[in-house]
Amino acid sequence: MSTIHHFRGTESAWDWENVLEYPIKPGDANSKGASGKIIISPQDGASHFVLRYFRVEPGGFSTLKDYHSHDHGVLILHGRAIVHIGEKQFEVGPHDAVYISPWEEHWLEAVGDEPMGFLCVIPNKDLLVKLGAAGK
Amino acid sequence: MSTIHHFRGTESAWDWENVLEYPIKPGDANSKGASGKIIISPQDGASHFVLRYFRVEPGGFSTLKDYHSHDHGVLILHGRAIVHIGEKQFEVGPHDAVYISPWEEHWLEAVGDEPMGFLCVIPNKDLLVKLGAAGK
Repeated sequence: MSTIHHFRGTESAWDWENVLEYPIKPGDANSKGASGKIIISPQDGASHFVLRYFRVEPGGFSTLKDYHSHDHGVLILHGRAIVHIGEKQFEVGPHDAVYISPWEEHWLEAVGDEPMGFLCVIPNKDLLVKLGAAGK
Repeated sequence: MSTIHHFRGTESAWDWENVLEYPIKPGDANSKGASGKIIISPQDGASHFVLRYFRVEPGGFSTLKDYHSHDHGVLILHGRAIVHIGEKQFEVGPHDAVYISPWEEHWLEAVGDEPMGFLCVIPNKDLLVKLGAAGK
């Protein structure tokens, strides 16, 4: 069944109808000032991909040196970031897109005075298991 | 390998570095005023999903009654649209998200005076073939 998730947030607090909170572990020292929403997921019947939104407060960062078998499709929605990929760093801003391939160490760091937000697409986990490509 | 596609367009003509034009057939009477860019794709080494951007001019629409085996994850980036799904219609605007499941007849129609643009995620075609889920 198809579903609509109307935006119900404000520019300073993005949110949507009927979405899940992304479970960031309380006290996780590997990220700072990061929160997330799972917008499109198996909850909608989606079996191939998941669309998530992450927000990182100024000076914060997503999980440091994150490293796993799935890849990421990222579109920056607001604010500015340094994307760390392996030993490289790239500065990105609104509408910039980033592809992070499997098993590349990566994290995003919010830079500037504004919170940074990005859309992050991943493949569905069950699908990776079917393909024999599931890992950490 | 990971890749960056910096935005290089303007608010009235969205575009990115090193992306492909979406091949809309010239004279295709099933869509009107629609154009697209393939932002993240197998060209980047992405084997699970594809991120595309579509722009529809005021009064235009994407392929009418489109119908296929793959699903869509949509995020409206600018402008307003009526999303037609089966017999239903939903009005959507910036940041609204839509999941369109496989084999549901659908199209997006730009409404209002502004061009409408949306991000559209699909699974990689080769992956659907592997899963035995490829179709039209």
